[in-house]
Amino acid sequence: MSCIAVCVDLSPAQTEHLSRQAEGYRLQPGGSLAGCEIAFGNPAPEALAGAESLRWIQLESVGFGEYSGLDWADLGNRLTLTNLAGFFAEPVAETALAGILSLTRGLNRLATLQAERHWVGDPIRTGLRLLGGARVVMLGYGSVNRRLAELLTPFGCKVVPLCSGSTREQLDAALPSADILVAAVPDTPQTRGLLNADRLALLPSKAVIVNLGRGTLVDEAALCDALVRGRLAGAVLDVTQEEPLPSDHPLWTTPNTLLTQHSAGGTMDEMDRKIDVFVDNLMRYRQGRDLLGVADLKRGY
Amino acid sequence: MSCIAVCVDLSPAQTEHLSRQAEGYRLQPGGSLAGCEIAFGNPAPEALAGAESLRWIQLESVGFGEYSGLDWADLGNRLTLTNLAGFFAEPVAETALAGILSLTRGLNRLATLQAERHWVGDPIRTGLRLLGGARVVMLGYGSVNRRLAELLTPFGCKVVPLCSGSTREQLDAALPSADILVAAVPDTPQTRGLLNADRLALLPSKAVIVNLGRGTLVDEAALCDALVRGRLAGAVLDVTQEEPLPSDHPLWTTPNTLLTQHSAGGTMDEMDRKIDVFVDNLMRYRQGRDLLGVADLKRGY
Repeated sequence: MSCIAVCVDLSPAQTEHLSRQAEGYRLQPGGSLAGCEIAFGNPAPEALAGAESLRWIQLESVGFGEYSGLDWADLGNRLTLTNLAGFFAEPVAETALAGILSLTRGLNRLATLQAERHWVGDPIRTGLRLLGGARVVMLGYGSVNRRLAELLTPFGCKVVPLCSGSTREQLDAALPSADILVAAVPDTPQTRGLLNADRLALLPSKAVIVNLGRGTLVDEAALCDALVRGRLAGAVLDVTQEEPLPSDHPLWTTPNTLLTQHSAGGTMDEMDRKIDVFVDNLMRYRQGRDLLGVADLKRGY
Repeated sequence: MSCIAVCVDLSPAQTEHLSRQAEGYRLQPGGSLAGCEIAFGNPAPEALAGAESLRWIQLESVGFGEYSGLDWADLGNRLTLTNLAGFFAEPVAETALAGILSLTRGLNRLATLQAERHWVGDPIRTGLRLLGGARVVMLGYGSVNRRLAELLTPFGCKVVPLCSGSTREQLDAALPSADILVAAVPDTPQTRGLLNADRLALLPSKAVIVNLGRGTLVDEAALCDALVRGRLAGAVLDVTQEEPLPSDHPLWTTPNTLLTQHSAGGTMDEMDRKIDVFVDNLMRYRQGRDLLGVADLKRGY
C-alpha cells in the first residue's frame, strides 16, 4: 500500500478525516519520509535526497525557500513540490487592513491609554486619519495584495500595483506620494534588502509601511530609526528578519509599530482547510491530472 | 451688521477663512449669543430662551439630545437647528471596521504581547477569525451603518439591517445568528437600555458587539459580565454611559474590549470640514433656500 508521510500536526479527528479521504494510502505520522510516495507538510530539506520513493510534497506553506538550496537538477526528475499559493490571501489581507486601520484610526494609541485607564477624549480626534482616498503603493501584486486591493475598493483608494516586472525606478518614483506602502513579496535575491535606508527615506512622513512577505525585504535598523524620528507614521510588520524576535530587539518598542508575529495567515480552521487542499490535489494526483500550486523552483515563488 | 456667534474653537487661520466666507457678518467668538442671528457650534441649551435674535444654529454634532428638553413649541417658531447628519459616516465606519478587525485578527492580544516583548508566534493563529462571510446585524441603518455596509461589501458579509421601523421581535430574531452586532442609533426613549441583559444573552458567544451611537443603549454591567464570562467574544465601544469614563470603571479592564473614547468621528481636518458645511448652509440661509440637516426635534435625530 502506498504511503503518505504526514509532516503536519493533526488532531485525532483530522487524522481520521484524512484517512477516509485518502483511502488506499497508509498515513505515516511523525514526519518520517521512509518508504513514502507522498508527503503532506514541510519535511526537513536535508531528508529529501535520501527519500527515494518520494514523488510529491504538498507543502503547508506558500514559501519554499528552505528547499531552494537543494540539487533540483537531480531531485526535480522524480519529485514535485506544490505549495499553498493563494491560500493565505484572505486572512493576510484582513490582518493587513486591520493593522493599517489601527494606525490611521488611532487604535494602537487608544489601547495604550486604556491600559493606563486614561481618558483623553476629544483631543484624540485631531490625530486621526481616513483611509478613504489614500494612495496605496503595493510592492508585489500576488494573491495577498490583489485581495487587499479588493477590500480597499469601497474606500476609493488609489492603488498603485508594482509587480515583479516593475523596475526599481518605478518603485522609487511611486514611494514619495505613498500614503501606505504594502509589501507582499517573497524572499528572493531581487527583494532582499530592497527597502533600504535610501528607499525608506523616499516615503513621506505621513506614510505607513506594511510588510507581509519576508523580513529580509527591509533594513530594520533604518526602519526603526525613521519611526523613532517621525519620518514615517507607522509600520505593520507580520514578518521580521529574526523570528522569534529576540526580546531585546528595538522593534518591540519602536513607536507606531504593530508586530503581528507572523500570524496574519492564521485562522481557526487553518489546518482543516489545508487538509481540503491536500485532499483535492491528492485526487488530481491519483487521476494523473495536473497538480495545483506547483512550485517554480527557478523563480523562487 | 448681522452677527454669528462662534461656539467652536477655531485657529486664527480658520477664523480668517470663516470671516472671508461669511462676508457681511460679524463673527462673535467666545460662545456668547447676545445680539446674534446665527450660531455655529453647540451653545449652552439654557442660553437659547434668552437669545431672542437667534434664528439658526448650525450644530457641530449629529446628536442634539441636550436641546430636546427645551420648549420647542415656542422656540421652534423663530429658531431652526441644523445638525451634521452624515458628516461622521466615513470616520466612524472606518473606526468600526478597525475595531472589528482588531478583535477578529487578534491585534488587541498582539498589542499586549508586544508590550511584554513576548513572542508567541504560530499558536496565535488558531485564535484568529475571518470577517469574510460573517453575518453582521446592524441596529440602526443611518449614514454610519450604511457606509459600514459599503466597506463590508468586498468581505462578502451577510448584512442584516434593522432600521427604526424594525420591531423588537425582529431584533430578537436576528441576534442569535449574529457574528457581529453594530449599533449606531441615537439616544431616544426607544433605544435607551434596549441592549439589556436578556438581549445580550441572545447573542452567540462568538459575537462581537460594536456601539457607535450613545452609551445609554447598552446595559454596561450585563455587557461586562458577558465578556468576562466569555459569553461574548468582544466589544468595540466608542460611547459609554459616562464620558469621561471614571478611572475605576470595570470597562477599562474588561477582556476583549476596545474603548475608543468617542473619537470615532474624528479626523485631522474635522474642523475645516465643519466650517465647509456651515459656509455651504450659510449661503443657503442668505439665499432663503432650504437648509441642509434640519433637526427633527420630535423624532429626536
